[in-house]
Amino acid sequence: MSKQLKFEVLTIGNELLIGKILNTNAHWLSRRITSLGGRVTRIITIGDDIDEISSTVRDCLARKPDFIITVGGLGPTFDDKTLEGVARALNLNLKVNSEALDMVKMKYESLSKTRGEKIELTPARIKMATLPDGAKPLTNPVGTAPGVLLEADGVTIICLPGVPEEMKAIFEDSISSIIRGRSKLIFCEKSLRLEGIYESDLAPIIDQVFKMNPRVYIKSHPKREEGGAYIELHLSTSDESLEECLKAIGVTTSEVKKRVVERGGRITEVPTGE
Amino acid sequence: MSKQLKFEVLTIGNELLIGKILNTNAHWLSRRITSLGGRVTRIITIGDDIDEISSTVRDCLARKPDFIITVGGLGPTFDDKTLEGVARALNLNLKVNSEALDMVKMKYESLSKTRGEKIELTPARIKMATLPDGAKPLTNPVGTAPGVLLEADGVTIICLPGVPEEMKAIFEDSISSIIRGRSKLIFCEKSLRLEGIYESDLAPIIDQVFKMNPRVYIKSHPKREEGGAYIELHLSTSDESLEECLKAIGVTTSEVKKRVVERGGRITEVPTGE
Repeated sequence: MSKQLKFEVLTIGNELLIGKILNTNAHWLSRRITSLGGRVTRIITIGDDIDEISSTVRDCLARKPDFIITVGGLGPTFDDKTLEGVARALNLNLKVNSEALDMVKMKYESLSKTRGEKIELTPARIKMATLPDGAKPLTNPVGTAPGVLLEADGVTIICLPGVPEEMKAIFEDSISSIIRGRSKLIFCEKSLRLEGIYESDLAPIIDQVFKMNPRVYIKSHPKREEGGAYIELHLSTSDESLEECLKAIGVTTSEVKKRVVERGGRITEVPTGE
Repeated sequence: MSKQLKFEVLTIGNELLIGKILNTNAHWLSRRITSLGGRVTRIITIGDDIDEISSTVRDCLARKPDFIITVGGLGPTFDDKTLEGVARALNLNLKVNSEALDMVKMKYESLSKTRGEKIELTPARIKMATLPDGAKPLTNPVGTAPGVLLEADGVTIICLPGVPEEMKAIFEDSISSIIRGRSKLIFCEKSLRLEGIYESDLAPIIDQVFKMNPRVYIKSHPKREEGGAYIELHLSTSDESLEECLKAIGVTTSEVKKRVVERGGRITEVPTGE
């Protein structure tokens, strides 16, 4: 079976560390990368600090993922430090990228027309077009700061802005096709709802069934709701063919069902897309 | 001013990496730690893998935070591997902890009574009482798996279960008082809503005001809503006295207001607790 592409996601911003913002960006990216057949191996959140960013990017590179995706810190303010951190990690100079500058200029020209006032290219605006040497800017269809793509030590580094709409738009426009082109795998999952069985009695069942078919990952999630507790059992696998995926999930589902029912538990399938 | 206590948060679970679960645990903990005067410097998410857990805990220890808080992987199933990973990182043996075993026993005895059936202490259940040597179990008022507290190399390591209700309950019962006792600082914040000014025009204003009073951290968040875009400006600081906090935030607010209004922008204060 093909090798699964490995991703590290680096979300940057003090607002995440003080708990002001829930990290929905990391969640969205992980789900999207998984659905494209990739595997996120690590998500890291750090603050707006050049030393932290550069040392963390170096640590990510040392683990040799296929992709590093950074989110946040591309804007015009003094604490948007991602590109400076990435450049330092890779020993690259930062300089104004003419393609990126054209993108930023176009945005402000269009805004100038709409507003009927000339918007100047201030240093804060030019900062958004100042990229590590050799980087390629990625069009931002929603906001101003372009995304950034870089190749270094065999790793593709992608920097996306932190505003969720901008991050998603650049990902869908410029990144998803790159991943789809390089990934040979598809991802399948299924959820089962189990009642009338303790997680600690389910544990040896999962263990047995997982050993029979280790390609299907099985994870139990104890849940509480009004009226009592239940267990959500989540099965997932990746394969080159959808047919193989579904077959593997089907076999595992049957084996789990048989054993859970034997122990007096009840099991129902949960519609996907919850 | 007193040193701010530093925290690293390590959330463990494949369900986070595939984007099945939004990491609300990290968000809740960050907010709570910040409100207790602590500073979260890094949040890391990794999968259910002993090597990953042990190497990541070692990396965390090397950065010498005051606390490492792990979340997830304390349950009875084969992929609950946190304590094995932590033990390996610290070169400690795992063994059944008698205090933890009593906690687990009590839970199942109480459950046995409620259900009118004897629940045996299976290996999967004893696993939840198997802790790194020298660890102290923390009562879980909601679920079964105890939390774990360990001291190593001057760092306090706390392991909490991943079920949000259990994590929160153990944190409030056993951890918040420890942090409050060691932290001398309180945290204050304020949000301002800015309209009629570009973030790129705000950038030099933030820069100026921040240099006047670097203890108040200022961060701009561009937001979109129906009817247009605005900027949320978030001010935050930590100090030993509430009075000093409020004074510092007040001064910074006035300086920002003056400059934003000069540039034709509008500014309103956002009630806290959004």
